[in-house]
Amino acid sequence: MKIITAKQYLSEKEDYSTSQTMLEDIDESVLEIIKQVKQYGDKALFQYTKQFDGADLTNLRVTDEEFKEAEKQVSDDFLSALKQAKANITEFHQVQKEHSWFVNKENGIMLGQKVTPLQKAGIYIPGGKAAYPSSVLMNAIPAKLAGVENIIITTPPLSDGTINPHVLAAARVAGADAVYKVGGAQAIAALAYGTETIEKVSKIVGPGNAYVARAKKWVFGDVAIDMIAGPSEICIVADETAPPAYVAADLLSQAEHDESAKPICITMKSKLAEKILLEVEKQTAELERKEIIQQSLKQNGRIILAENESEAFELVNEIAPEHLQLMIQNPSEKLHYVKNAGAVFLGNYSPEPLGDYFAGPNHTLPTSGTAKFSSPLGVYDFVKKSSIISYSSEALKEASDTIINLANTEGLTAHANSVQIRKEGSYEKLQD
Amino acid sequence: MKIITAKQYLSEKEDYSTSQTMLEDIDESVLEIIKQVKQYGDKALFQYTKQFDGADLTNLRVTDEEFKEAEKQVSDDFLSALKQAKANITEFHQVQKEHSWFVNKENGIMLGQKVTPLQKAGIYIPGGKAAYPSSVLMNAIPAKLAGVENIIITTPPLSDGTINPHVLAAARVAGADAVYKVGGAQAIAALAYGTETIEKVSKIVGPGNAYVARAKKWVFGDVAIDMIAGPSEICIVADETAPPAYVAADLLSQAEHDESAKPICITMKSKLAEKILLEVEKQTAELERKEIIQQSLKQNGRIILAENESEAFELVNEIAPEHLQLMIQNPSEKLHYVKNAGAVFLGNYSPEPLGDYFAGPNHTLPTSGTAKFSSPLGVYDFVKKSSIISYSSEALKEASDTIINLANTEGLTAHANSVQIRKEGSYEKLQD
Repeated sequence: MKIITAKQYLSEKEDYSTSQTMLEDIDESVLEIIKQVKQYGDKALFQYTKQFDGADLTNLRVTDEEFKEAEKQVSDDFLSALKQAKANITEFHQVQKEHSWFVNKENGIMLGQKVTPLQKAGIYIPGGKAAYPSSVLMNAIPAKLAGVENIIITTPPLSDGTINPHVLAAARVAGADAVYKVGGAQAIAALAYGTETIEKVSKIVGPGNAYVARAKKWVFGDVAIDMIAGPSEICIVADETAPPAYVAADLLSQAEHDESAKPICITMKSKLAEKILLEVEKQTAELERKEIIQQSLKQNGRIILAENESEAFELVNEIAPEHLQLMIQNPSEKLHYVKNAGAVFLGNYSPEPLGDYFAGPNHTLPTSGTAKFSSPLGVYDFVKKSSIISYSSEALKEASDTIINLANTEGLTAHANSVQIRKEGSYEKLQD
Repeated sequence: MKIITAKQYLSEKEDYSTSQTMLEDIDESVLEIIKQVKQYGDKALFQYTKQFDGADLTNLRVTDEEFKEAEKQVSDDFLSALKQAKANITEFHQVQKEHSWFVNKENGIMLGQKVTPLQKAGIYIPGGKAAYPSSVLMNAIPAKLAGVENIIITTPPLSDGTINPHVLAAARVAGADAVYKVGGAQAIAALAYGTETIEKVSKIVGPGNAYVARAKKWVFGDVAIDMIAGPSEICIVADETAPPAYVAADLLSQAEHDESAKPICITMKSKLAEKILLEVEKQTAELERKEIIQQSLKQNGRIILAENESEAFELVNEIAPEHLQLMIQNPSEKLHYVKNAGAVFLGNYSPEPLGDYFAGPNHTLPTSGTAKFSSPLGVYDFVKKSSIISYSSEALKEASDTIINLANTEGLTAHANSVQIRKEGSYEKLQD
């Protein structure tokens, strides 16, 4: 982890910036996997699951017995924690629900916007040794609240063919309709195009490795996706009221995700920067995942010295961090300076893990600067809108010259004709 | 145009279905264009504009003089039609505006969702011989209402270096901040990555040809896009109350877009089907764009005979049409059967062109069945949300065991530590 100036940060940031516009090494494999799954369905899924996960399955869908077994294996404390988290997530996301609206205007005109849930949604949950029950809740609960009829989870099995019991318990608590034992690009292909066992969904959400992310980019357009997730990031703006030990702990919680995670602190006080640096070193030594943390800190850990708070917020908006902690005086009064951030944590007692697990807002957040144009996952991700237009004969007649003018200007004379024929009002009905 | 059953339609629909997951012939060119624009900026834009549009430009940005000249060239009737359309579009889209919200809970907890406009948006408008001033309004007005600071339009010039005056007039009426003379994949690359003249934007919207659509798919993730637009479609559900001449005129208004446009009618009455077919033939003969229309009808025109209304609506939801017209008795009472459609037009006096130009709802709609998961373009496309989390020391203490349990379950012990260290409450501040 090193201390640099804002200017230095911006110049090195250029090199950071990722790009979606190159064929990647893995594209060939990803496209081949998608092709095989489209062609051979379940058969391809069984084969890839054997090849990549070492599991020789005969059944993709998790059975009721497996769910029951899983629930026995998890502790009561864990189940109760899960349920508390669910209650908070539900409470927050309920406010996001959107409703259809209709407006009646003069002349028998009615306009509106109809909100309809997606019928089927697929959630990808990473598997293997790590288990992410919190991601199950964060992805499934908004879908459920939106009214999605069919919520499907896919997650890769361990080599013995089992799924982590905490993930299965979370799937039950969240109300998912089915869990399938399949991971990687093959799971994304199955969700996008369907197989004998797995139904094609309308939208795929959830985190995953490079293969999963790239497969999501490829199927995008045939099916909706949440986002193409990049490395996780935190940006902490700290002033003299921020305890260095807290700042350090939060940077390290980000760093432990993986080597490419980005822990960044912006401060106006060089003395604070040094204290944080010392704390980072001290705490790292005590942490289980210190190898990963050290790599992340070395490659991406930065403490940036800003001239003043205004420069700090400029930098924040340029970085557009996934997680932003404002550990400064009167943070809520400074909130209007924040234009681009996935989630904003205010004060010294709102560390990122509070949001990751418990507070209620979603932990699926836009990464790699995409907070400039993306939102946290929400109920709005699982509904879509239809516009409604209803005109009376009289209202259309009144509007007809304007419509005909605009259609003719665009050279679309059959468009003009569709209005003209009604303006003239001569028609026969079937019963005439 | 042919008459078939619902079953026949569904079996031939399989062949229709497009896919995003293949490398396309044009991908090589598209990726090369993006690479050149990233590397050479304006210079590449000038070169491609010469190569593809035949225009040898020295200046990309439309000047004030050019705008003034354009306004002289368009008729007063057109300008007035544009302004009426603008008023209706504004009135409808204003209802879509979202607002930030904050909730105070017990124990000093505050949660919220902050809504912020995108800072910069780019709109692609197709050019050449056709001109689409209506698309300018439909894309720019929601961006303006959302509060986007910088709205940029790109559109390819004619070979003499000019832009269609109707498009320029619409850009002024809609309040766009700049218009640049560049089209194709090179325009998408410029908007996504920026050049000396064109600023990088956060989101690219608007229709375009295959190169534009594919370039949008490639830059997606580095920048937001609205959708990957496919061929335009209409689906008309008609019963005996629908005048065959009107149904035919509306099918033809769709067919004139291009050869791949899909005009579909679903009816329960075979006699009506025949009458519509006759009307289609009769009217086609009179229309300017009859060659395009005949191709579209031949390839994609279908009148589908449904057993009953329930089968008709099942088919509608499977097709998920861009435009749906319900020319049936009491159409608004049937609206709840519609799950998937971009825009729904009710009754005999709400033809699609009314929505294309005038009524107020957006004409940028999900195509090719993507209405299963996508919405019309709206104000919501030009804002994004940030979650806000603020906990007091007391509230965090109360939640800490739950958070620590969940973090440890996921093996993320540094996450647990960030809460633990605050629970213990021992820290020193900088000033201590």
